[in-house]
Amino acid sequence: MEITSGGVCAAKGFSASGIHCGVRKNKTKRDLALIYSEVPASAAAVYTKNLVKGAPLTVTKKHITDGVAQAVLCNSGNANTCNADGIEVAEKMCELLSENIAVKPSDVIVASTGVIGQRLDITPIAVGLPLLVSELGSSEESSVRAAEGIMTTDTVLKEIAVKFTVGGKECHIGGIAKGSGMIHPNMATMLVFITTDAAISPKMLKKALSADIQNTFNMVSVDGDTSTNDMVAILANGMAGNATISKEDEDFAEFMKALNTITVYLCRKIAGDGEGATKLLECSVTGAKEEEIAKTVAKSVICSSLFKAAMFGADANWGRVLCAIGYSGADVDVDRIDVSFESRAGRIDVCKNGAGIDFSEETAKEVLSEKEINVIIDLNSGDAAATAWGCDLTYDYVKINGDYRT
Amino acid sequence: MEITSGGVCAAKGFSASGIHCGVRKNKTKRDLALIYSEVPASAAAVYTKNLVKGAPLTVTKKHITDGVAQAVLCNSGNANTCNADGIEVAEKMCELLSENIAVKPSDVIVASTGVIGQRLDITPIAVGLPLLVSELGSSEESSVRAAEGIMTTDTVLKEIAVKFTVGGKECHIGGIAKGSGMIHPNMATMLVFITTDAAISPKMLKKALSADIQNTFNMVSVDGDTSTNDMVAILANGMAGNATISKEDEDFAEFMKALNTITVYLCRKIAGDGEGATKLLECSVTGAKEEEIAKTVAKSVICSSLFKAAMFGADANWGRVLCAIGYSGADVDVDRIDVSFESRAGRIDVCKNGAGIDFSEETAKEVLSEKEINVIIDLNSGDAAATAWGCDLTYDYVKINGDYRT
Repeated sequence: MEITSGGVCAAKGFSASGIHCGVRKNKTKRDLALIYSEVPASAAAVYTKNLVKGAPLTVTKKHITDGVAQAVLCNSGNANTCNADGIEVAEKMCELLSENIAVKPSDVIVASTGVIGQRLDITPIAVGLPLLVSELGSSEESSVRAAEGIMTTDTVLKEIAVKFTVGGKECHIGGIAKGSGMIHPNMATMLVFITTDAAISPKMLKKALSADIQNTFNMVSVDGDTSTNDMVAILANGMAGNATISKEDEDFAEFMKALNTITVYLCRKIAGDGEGATKLLECSVTGAKEEEIAKTVAKSVICSSLFKAAMFGADANWGRVLCAIGYSGADVDVDRIDVSFESRAGRIDVCKNGAGIDFSEETAKEVLSEKEINVIIDLNSGDAAATAWGCDLTYDYVKINGDYRT
Repeated sequence: MEITSGGVCAAKGFSASGIHCGVRKNKTKRDLALIYSEVPASAAAVYTKNLVKGAPLTVTKKHITDGVAQAVLCNSGNANTCNADGIEVAEKMCELLSENIAVKPSDVIVASTGVIGQRLDITPIAVGLPLLVSELGSSEESSVRAAEGIMTTDTVLKEIAVKFTVGGKECHIGGIAKGSGMIHPNMATMLVFITTDAAISPKMLKKALSADIQNTFNMVSVDGDTSTNDMVAILANGMAGNATISKEDEDFAEFMKALNTITVYLCRKIAGDGEGATKLLECSVTGAKEEEIAKTVAKSVICSSLFKAAMFGADANWGRVLCAIGYSGADVDVDRIDVSFESRAGRIDVCKNGAGIDFSEETAKEVLSEKEINVIIDLNSGDAAATAWGCDLTYDYVKINGDYRT
C-alpha cells in the first residue's frame, strides 16, 4: 500500500469539481461540490445519531437504501436543518443535478453544512449547477476544488488517497473531509466522502465502513458537540477490475487496511484543524481490561476542557488527565494508572501508579510545545487499547464561536 | 422565610474563621478555613462520584459514618489528591485541630481544594492552626473570612443565610461555597458548607441533602469536568430548640424549603462565577414527559461549548440549542420544541415546533447582552420541568486554564 495523489479522483472513473455559487456571501469561498462516478457504484453511509437531523441526511438515507449511488452533491454555508421545507429543498438539489448530468435523482448522495435553522435558497444552486458539472475533472486539482467546496471554518484542506492491491489488481481509495467545529461524532461524523475503484458488494462496503468508524471518526472530538449533519459516505465503482469482494476474506482485509489508512489520516487532519486549534492531541490508552474501557478513557481525556486548555498552555497538568479518567464512567483501578506525554521533542513520565512522580518542568514544557502531542495512558490491567484524537482549547475557539452567524 | 446576614455564622452556636497560613504562595489570599459548632451536630455530606477521589473525602466519609460532626477544616491551594501520603496528611489535619480546640478528630469534616498531584505540606497548617482557632468569631466578618479561605480562582464570595420557622421556633441556615473551574458535579459538588441551628436527626438531614442536590448542585456545570474533591457538607446543631425533625412531616418540608433557598442561591453564584464567565446562563425546560428528560435536556444545553460561546458573543444561535437537545440522549419529539431567550431586557421567541421563526436580531442582541440569560425550552410533550445553571465560554476561561499550575 502506498500514498498517492488525486484525493477522491485517484480511483478510476471518478471526477470532481467545486465552485462558488452564492450560498455563502464570501465570493472567494467555494460553496458547492460534486463527486461523480462514470458508472453506478456500491454505496454505504453512516449518519449522526443526533435526533435533530439535517434534511439532506434523510434524503440520502432513502436514496442509498438499495446500496447504489453515482454522485455526491454538497453545499457549504447552510446546513439545511430545522427548516420547514428542508426535505423538499434537498430533493430538489438531486433533481436539478439529474437535469445536468447522467444520474438518477435517487442515485445522488446529498449533503449540506453550515448554519442551522436558516432556509436554504435553492436559486444559487440551480444557477450554479451547469458550471459545476462542466468543470468536472479527474485531476488532483479537481479533488482539491471539491474539498474546498465543503469547508466551513476549516483552515486546511483535508484530502488523501492510497494505492493498494486486491486479488492482483491495483486499486485506489481516496477521501475528502470537512471538520472544524461541532465535532464529536456519534456513529457517524462530520462530512467525509470516500471513493474507491475496488469492486465490493454494497453489503460488505457497509460492513467495512461501520466497523472502521468505531475506531476512527467516533474517536474524534473537537468540542463535544455532536452535529446534526454528520455523514461519512463511500462510493465503490469496481473499475479496478478485481473480483468483487463479497465476504470476509483476505481481499476484504486488504480493503479494510486501505480504508483505515484513509480514515485515520482524515481523523488526525480533522482533530488538528479543530476550530481555533494550535495542537493535535492524540490520547493512546493501553492496558485496559476491555476495548470499551480504553475507548471511554481515551475519549474522556480528549474531551476535557481543562486538559485541552492545559495543552494550549503547554502545562503538564497531569492531574486533569487523572480527573478525566476518574469521571469517565469506565471501570479502572486508579492506583495502577501511569501517564506520560510524548512529542517530537521527546517523552516524559509524569504519573506512576496513580500518583505524581518528580519530573523536569523544563523538559515537560519542551515536549508540550510541539504541534502534535500524545498523552499515553497505561491502565496496567489488561491487553485492550484505543486511541482518540482531539485538539487544544484556545482563545480562537471562543472567538470563532462567539459570533459565527453574523 | 427571610434572607438574613451572617453566612455560616447565622445559625446559633456556630463560629468561623479564615487565615493565610502558607499553603498558597500569594500572601494576600486566605488558604485555611474553620467552621466550629459549640456542640456536636447532626452531620451529612455528599461527595464526588469521580473514581479519583481526594484523600480528605475518604477521611471525612469515615468521620461522619455516625452522623455526627462538630467542625469543618478546609485548605485551598492544594487538593491533596493523587498523593501517596494523602490520607495520612488529611488525618493529621484533624488531629492537629483537636489539639487546638475541643473537638474529637473523628468529629472533623476535612476538605482540600487546589492543584491535584502535589504533596500537601502539613507544616504551614500546623503552624497556622492556633491563629485560626483564636480568630474564631460569630460575626458576618468571620463567615466572610472562612468563605475567602476556601476560594481558588473564584472572583466573588459565595455566602448566604436565611431565617425560617420550625414548630414555632426561629431557625437559621447559612452556607458558603467555592466553585469556579472543574465544575460539573455528579452526586455531590464543589465545596459547599452549610450550617443550621435547626434540630434534625442525622438520617433526615442526609435525606434532605441527598434529595436537594439532585435539583441544585447536580444541575450546575461550568466546564463539564467533574472534580475529584467535590463535597457538600451540612451541620445541624439543634440550638434553635425546635422539636427534632425525625420524619417527613410539615417541619421537614419547612426545612427542605429553607435548605433549597440556600442551595439554589449558591448554585447561581457558582455558575455565574464560573472560570472566565461574563454571564450566568439558566436553562429552563418545561413540557417534558418525565423529569429525567427535562434534566437531561437542560444540562446538555448548559454544557454545550458552542452554545456557551454563542452566549459570550450575544449571538441568538438557537440552532446550537436544538443541536444540544438532539444529541442529549433524551427522548424528545424534535418537531414540538419551542425555544425563547429571556433576560432583564425582555423576551424573544426564536424557534417554534423545531423550526426557526422570524425575529429581530437587534432585539435578540439586547436580550443577550445582559449578565443573566434564561434560555427557555418547551418540549410540549408533558408536565415535567427542570432547571440547569452554567456560564458562557470566554477567552478568560482559556487563559485561566492554559496555565493554572505555574
